[in-house]
Amino acid sequence: MPYVTVKMLEGRSEEQKKALVEKVTDAVSETTGAPKEKIAVFIEEMSKNHYALGGKRLSDE
Amino acid sequence: MPYVTVKMLEGRSEEQKKALVEKVTDAVSETTGAPKEKIAVFIEEMSKNHYALGGKRLSDE
Amino acid sequence: MPYVTVKMLEGRSEEQKKALVEKVTDAVSETTGAPKEKIAVFIEEMSKNHYALGGKRLSDE
Amino acid sequence: MPYVTVKMLEGRSEEQKKALVEKVTDAVSETTGAPKEKIAVFIEEMSKNHYALGGKRLSDE
Amino acid sequence: MPYVTVKMLEGRSEEQKKALVEKVTDAVSETTGAPKEKIAVFIEEMSKNHYALGGKRLSDE
Amino acid sequence: MPYVTVKMLEGRSEEQKKALVEKVTDAVSETTGAPKEKIAVFIEEMSKNHYALGGKRLSDE
Repeated sequence: MPYVTVKMLEGRSEEQKKALVEKVTDAVSETTGAPKEKIAVFIEEMSKNHYALGGKRLSDE
Repeated sequence: MPYVTVKMLEGRSEEQKKALVEKVTDAVSETTGAPKEKIAVFIEEMSKNHYALGGKRLSDE
Repeated sequence: MPYVTVKMLEGRSEEQKKALVEKVTDAVSETTGAPKEKIAVFIEEMSKNHYALGGKRLSDE
Repeated sequence: MPYVTVKMLEGRSEEQKKALVEKVTDAVSETTGAPKEKIAVFIEEMSKNHYALGGKRLSDE
Repeated sequence: MPYVTVKMLEGRSEEQKKALVEKVTDAVSETTGAPKEKIAVFIEEMSKNHYALGGKRLSDE
Repeated sequence: MPYVTVKMLEGRSEEQKKALVEKVTDAVSETTGAPKEKIAVFIEEMSKNHYALGGKRLSDE
């Protein structure tokens, strides 16, 4: 605890994901005081046909 | 905002998903007053071996 | 099933929420073919100090 | 209702998942009084490159 | 890990919730092989005006 | 997008939450390349009687 979920479009590289979880963990630890080893980060990827803004899927634009 | 998540069994067609996000966005906008361009819809699909009702997975029926 | 979650800022009236779940259920049933009695809708409300866009909470604007 | 979500690393067998939903449903029914046929269980699997503890993904260890 | 979320109507007693997390943790540990100390359980409560089945909120029945 | 959810025990101050959403947004923007104005952060707070590790709620320790 804390538990952080990052939901984003698929397509980021492994290097980006690796940096993402590192930097997010640092940010949460610094601002909440939680020790880093207690912070979990989950990445959830969405495909373009499963995400819509304004009623239109990204895959339909 | 609002953010809408629709969790359902996999298997719907792209046409159904396209209509789903359109109609749900309309319904949310009409009833909450939120402008359509601020409404996000996420589709999450489940497989039959990852969903159970009454302790029994759909894949085991 | 399907299961629909609508996450939005707190402040809508009971009448709006009642209409919201009705219209969203209709929209999901029409477009996915799921019978209405199988569709569940959850409303989750956020307060302005627990939601940020662009790194700024609504309560800090 | 209740709705139970179990998020875990991918890799469990179908037999394990089958037993998991059975036993969890029993546990929820016994302790909450909810009838078993009203209890839904969802399994969500994570891959090792999408889960981090202490800022480090399992896939990077 | 695993992480278990139980979403249910508000109204259960503290004794019921205490038993719920115990029994669910046991069930997950036995069937997945995960050690109990790694299993987290979250309880999320819903009010009757924020949950609808068949387009009708429990608070409107 | 991306959408970030931070689930943590209740009790942090408004100053901590304000800093949390700022720093997390920066971290996500730097590592994914997403523009800050597209990044949403949600804070979800848990009470000690709704969170358990190893089958024991924090409120029972």
